[in-house]
Amino acid sequence: MLSEYRVAVAGATGLVGRTILRILEERSFPVGEIRLLATERSAGQEIEFAGRKVKVQIARPEAFEGMDLAFFAVGTDASRILAPIARDRGAVAIDKSNAFRMDPAVPLVVPEVNADALAGHRGIIASPNCSTIQMVAVLKPLDTAAGLARVVVSTYQSVSGSGRGGMVELESQLQDLHSGRKAAVRFYPRQVAMNLIPHIDSFLPDGYTGEERKMILETRKILGLPELPVTATTVRVPVMVGHAEAVNVETRRKLTRAEALRALAAAPGVVVMDDPAAGLYPTPLDAAGRDEVLVGRVREDPSIENGLDLWIVADNLRKGAATNAVQIAEHLVSARLIG
Amino acid sequence: MLSEYRVAVAGATGLVGRTILRILEERSFPVGEIRLLATERSAGQEIEFAGRKVKVQIARPEAFEGMDLAFFAVGTDASRILAPIARDRGAVAIDKSNAFRMDPAVPLVVPEVNADALAGHRGIIASPNCSTIQMVAVLKPLDTAAGLARVVVSTYQSVSGSGRGGMVELESQLQDLHSGRKAAVRFYPRQVAMNLIPHIDSFLPDGYTGEERKMILETRKILGLPELPVTATTVRVPVMVGHAEAVNVETRRKLTRAEALRALAAAPGVVVMDDPAAGLYPTPLDAAGRDEVLVGRVREDPSIENGLDLWIVADNLRKGAATNAVQIAEHLVSARLIG
Repeated sequence: MLSEYRVAVAGATGLVGRTILRILEERSFPVGEIRLLATERSAGQEIEFAGRKVKVQIARPEAFEGMDLAFFAVGTDASRILAPIARDRGAVAIDKSNAFRMDPAVPLVVPEVNADALAGHRGIIASPNCSTIQMVAVLKPLDTAAGLARVVVSTYQSVSGSGRGGMVELESQLQDLHSGRKAAVRFYPRQVAMNLIPHIDSFLPDGYTGEERKMILETRKILGLPELPVTATTVRVPVMVGHAEAVNVETRRKLTRAEALRALAAAPGVVVMDDPAAGLYPTPLDAAGRDEVLVGRVREDPSIENGLDLWIVADNLRKGAATNAVQIAEHLVSARLIG
Repeated sequence: MLSEYRVAVAGATGLVGRTILRILEERSFPVGEIRLLATERSAGQEIEFAGRKVKVQIARPEAFEGMDLAFFAVGTDASRILAPIARDRGAVAIDKSNAFRMDPAVPLVVPEVNADALAGHRGIIASPNCSTIQMVAVLKPLDTAAGLARVVVSTYQSVSGSGRGGMVELESQLQDLHSGRKAAVRFYPRQVAMNLIPHIDSFLPDGYTGEERKMILETRKILGLPELPVTATTVRVPVMVGHAEAVNVETRRKLTRAEALRALAAAPGVVVMDDPAAGLYPTPLDAAGRDEVLVGRVREDPSIENGLDLWIVADNLRKGAATNAVQIAEHLVSARLIG
């Protein structure tokens, strides 16, 4: 185990990249040298990290030379090119994009759920889609307790899930409406302010979107249940930060509400907020700024023999992206899988 | 059949009451005399109807005297008192509140779905909950085509579903946030701007909310399927007008996407907006101002043998409330069940 790690962050000026930097600081990850990488457009900017000003460099192949660890908070195409370069130069790449998630040779990891998948990694590790992460954190303890039989999920995803562009779009459309103007649609396929867009990522031939497909396939891979029946409808909502999910679960054995709550309360990284009588349930505002996955509205669903309804909320920038990536790095360090 | 009907609208100054007046005009309902009724607070206001100014009166028992038809767009407690009074004085009461919906002696009607239930009415007819109306309009043709086996619904309900107070709350909270203030929470249990509230109506002992229970029980009654397994999670979203629903349906016989689309396209009051390749799917903004229920994102759900996923959107003030009530009145007239 090294006492300090040389860390590169590709996409350091983006919303998730900056959140990775904040979380490395917050969790006192043992960073020795840090290299902030971005496209030519952002190069030269200075970003503060742990009290020092660090100049952003262009994410050229040489920039990964000598790094122990490289976080990738860039698009899928950029990751596909850069992550193998980082790996070939000796760094372990932790990638939040969709580039390698379903690659059988690449572990897809939510540390609380399947940290064991990190053993035997080959230099690239994938962090799942934001909506998958928060769902599997809650599904795992239910699977352990009673076996999962089927999952039906509807998502309520905030605009920050699309990066800064989504936040600017919502803000400027609200400004337009407030000023009595028509909302200008620039970023999303439809107006998002005062509206809902059931269209995240592109449509596939079977009518599901890429986002829905990711939730289905990634959930199966992370839980190690390759045949698990899952269906998903993913929807963009006019909320800045925090994704929510209404999840209907069928288990193999009956779980009462009390048993489900016990299993969830004992699950790492999960916080139960469930006391209807006291008006306690999680909302995106409760999740924003937190690293845990919040769950509430746990109900026995009498429409099926072993049914449960749940409401799951998390900060999509933190646990849904940056925190999960940093937790992967922490696990690599503590399990001596790096350096 | 009368050539004109004497019509009372109780709750005439409210959001739904005003929409009822607009829709009576739009659809040229044969209104002779009109009486606009409200609480003392609103009495004396003048509202324009069909080119004349009508003064709002207090909704006293005598106000229903001589009326053929009385629309109730008031709260459940007020309906419980006033609708029987109107009926006893000879009017047919069409009530949009929760007061009589599950009363076995009261028809609960979405005219496109179960207009036949109006025959033999006893003077009070209930219009269902907004989120139920749009769902059953779409479920009915699927039930006819293949038999329903189970329904799982997650809702995305706009603030106008709570009346003017909900709209004022969202508007003023957005204004607060825009001005850099903390959003003042006055109307809903939690902040609704930039947030989601999985709490509509009160919590029941089993953890479901009243709104969720209504969707379950009303759906069964309207479809005439008293045992239909249904579960629901209902959520308030920061949208002004238009409710959306992600619905997962299990049918008794297999329905392909093409068969489902054909059944839906032939259903009265339903408009199919489903062409993913062209980016065509309904959003609340598409539904606002329309009287039909819009459906899209129809997919075969491979997580179960006979599964379908659908996305249903409607204007909650129009088809979800006022339009449905006026359509009930139209049917009473055309079927000679009144006057």
